[in-house]
Amino acid sequence: MARGTEVAKDRVEALTDGIFAIAMTLLVLSIGVPSVPAELSPDVVLPGLVLGLWPQILACAIAFLVLMSFWLGHEQLFGLVARLDRPFVNLNLITLLGIVFVPFSSALTSDYGSARIAIWVFAANLAAIGLLYGAQRYYLVRHPNLLHAPITPAEARLGYARSLCSPAAALLAVLLSFPAPDLSSFSYLLIPVFLAAIDHMWSR
Amino acid sequence: MARGTEVAKDRVEALTDGIFAIAMTLLVLSIGVPSVPAELSPDVVLPGLVLGLWPQILACAIAFLVLMSFWLGHEQLFGLVARLDRPFVNLNLITLLGIVFVPFSSALTSDYGSARIAIWVFAANLAAIGLLYGAQRYYLVRHPNLLHAPITPAEARLGYARSLCSPAAALLAVLLSFPAPDLSSFSYLLIPVFLAAIDHMWSR
Amino acid sequence: MARGTEVAKDRVEALTDGIFAIAMTLLVLSIGVPSVPAELSPDVVLPGLVLGLWPQILACAIAFLVLMSFWLGHEQLFGLVARLDRPFVNLNLITLLGIVFVPFSSALTSDYGSARIAIWVFAANLAAIGLLYGAQRYYLVRHPNLLHAPITPAEARLGYARSLCSPAAALLAVLLSFPAPDLSSFSYLLIPVFLAAIDHMWSR
Amino acid sequence: MARGTEVAKDRVEALTDGIFAIAMTLLVLSIGVPSVPAELSPDVVLPGLVLGLWPQILACAIAFLVLMSFWLGHEQLFGLVARLDRPFVNLNLITLLGIVFVPFSSALTSDYGSARIAIWVFAANLAAIGLLYGAQRYYLVRHPNLLHAPITPAEARLGYARSLCSPAAALLAVLLSFPAPDLSSFSYLLIPVFLAAIDHMWSR
Repeated sequence: MARGTEVAKDRVEALTDGIFAIAMTLLVLSIGVPSVPAELSPDVVLPGLVLGLWPQILACAIAFLVLMSFWLGHEQLFGLVARLDRPFVNLNLITLLGIVFVPFSSALTSDYGSARIAIWVFAANLAAIGLLYGAQRYYLVRHPNLLHAPITPAEARLGYARSLCSPAAALLAVLLSFPAPDLSSFSYLLIPVFLAAIDHMWSR
Repeated sequence: MARGTEVAKDRVEALTDGIFAIAMTLLVLSIGVPSVPAELSPDVVLPGLVLGLWPQILACAIAFLVLMSFWLGHEQLFGLVARLDRPFVNLNLITLLGIVFVPFSSALTSDYGSARIAIWVFAANLAAIGLLYGAQRYYLVRHPNLLHAPITPAEARLGYARSLCSPAAALLAVLLSFPAPDLSSFSYLLIPVFLAAIDHMWSR
Repeated sequence: MARGTEVAKDRVEALTDGIFAIAMTLLVLSIGVPSVPAELSPDVVLPGLVLGLWPQILACAIAFLVLMSFWLGHEQLFGLVARLDRPFVNLNLITLLGIVFVPFSSALTSDYGSARIAIWVFAANLAAIGLLYGAQRYYLVRHPNLLHAPITPAEARLGYARSLCSPAAALLAVLLSFPAPDLSSFSYLLIPVFLAAIDHMWSR
Repeated sequence: MARGTEVAKDRVEALTDGIFAIAMTLLVLSIGVPSVPAELSPDVVLPGLVLGLWPQILACAIAFLVLMSFWLGHEQLFGLVARLDRPFVNLNLITLLGIVFVPFSSALTSDYGSARIAIWVFAANLAAIGLLYGAQRYYLVRHPNLLHAPITPAEARLGYARSLCSPAAALLAVLLSFPAPDLSSFSYLLIPVFLAAIDHMWSR
């Protein structure tokens, strides 16, 4: 590799782990502490207000699980990689741009969970991240010199299938947003199920 | 271990340390700078307003000490571990979901420290984290292949006792919330005392 | 090097990666979730409000790309460095002061993209960071004992050219702010183009 | 050292670097983007509002420089340490509790820079951190088994002098708060001067 074009893998991992850690922790900032009007007793009013946060807490937990899946995908992908070149790092950083938008699009669904535009923005965000992961995998398949060991065609197919889990769940969420917007965010709970099924096929 | 199922320990540690660092630092965001009405002099009004922040500063310090105990527990647990498999990492990441909720539940007790629902939400959060630590320990006891050295039954008992410190303190906080809600948060100060007692028994 | 004057390189990198990760993630906090008046239906009003966030999302994405370029520049610079002395670390930390201001100056352009003062503050921030990178390079050229291998005059010239990319783009943004303030932020998209051109010259 | 009482140094460093990175970046969140009333033109009003942020930007820069000094002090201290025991880690984590309060106490001086209570809270925070650093040094002097090499009495004296720089600057700020509150925050700019003088004495 030409001098000056290789990028230190441990620093890309440190930046990535930092951005994931912050995005995962910021999710919870969208759950505001409810404010009790001064003339009312917190002991009377607060239980109802806290229970009313349930949709926001659920949206936050789902977004956390999705980010957790993406982080595991990044760890799995970088486990294959021995060295990084500039185009691959650029792809990786653009993917992180998708990750930093998750606290925003999650807050949108958290506040307006039954509004279709909120569902679509969250779905578009997650689908874009999944497709960028797919692009990273495609780049690695085409540049085996970056890898510890070449990716076999069977491994490549399983890898692309992993990258399509979140776009597939996002598509399902968009389809569900027409008949049942309140249920659409549950489609993201299928991502770990999809991934576990693919891992099961992989290990056979 | 089957290929593709091991997860890099240093990256899980980096994500964990990042999430703890952010959660610990976000605690202080719940202490808002008091606003002095424009027609009043800050030198006259501000001292009282700053002293009035005392309960919030105390809630923040207690939550910091609790997170500090959990972080030390994670460091102690990962010191035993030689390699990580997927189910253990999933357990670990779910525990982090509990950690990211601490700034929210701490802000709730910070704003409404004497409201029972706030005390209960904070207690439930900390008890859940402690139980998830216990589940991690149980998984390690059952999977000695992940460890540097097998855990003896005596070590396992002490480990479970460590994991039960925060649920025990949370239970005490809930019980105290009936007669003396203002005192209940002090029960968490027992966590380091409990842990030191267990460490003392361990080192004998 | 005298005892006590060397600074651990891995810790400066960890602090730097942490600050970049947080600054990149905080950018998105300036995009607030729009609030729908209670008497209106989110499904009717929200699509327009979300589309109205377009300039803020664009400002956030541009600031992310600029921070990404600076992070890559830091990684490239530290790839040359074998050890750090105090003055170089001080220069590096002052540069980080410039980085932590980016979420603020980016939020200013995000909210008031066509106001000249906002364009100028953002431009001054990015130009200052670029000039501080140039100062770091100058210090390294003068202190080859810190480097893995001495920097040749040709490499030094290319390095200074890299450091001048963001001041040049900032100058262009300021000039564009008079005839066409709405277009000026696009000048920052030239930074990766400039850098790629320099890298192309380097690799020849 | 007894089994289970040693704490991994790299993880304490990672947590510390993370907390410093976040605290340094959060400082800038206290500089809010000024809001221009809807009926006024941003091009007319915003320049004055941005110039009016000058005291807040200065407070943020001073707090950044102070945190930078503390971070360098931590790096210098941990450079001496070969292994960590529980009491030292507990001291270290309590010091981090002081660090996470800096964004709050800095925001207080940023908003009410001429109010004595704000000056005193900031001074108390920084003095407490400095004294906790001194306590860490004292612990290390008494536990040479934790060190790469024993600390000589002359080195110990210089180390204590370093730890007293921020309490000394804080005391000066408190004294200045009576005749000239607006100038008192500049006393913190003496911390790097004090430290450089001590380093100069050290290297002789």
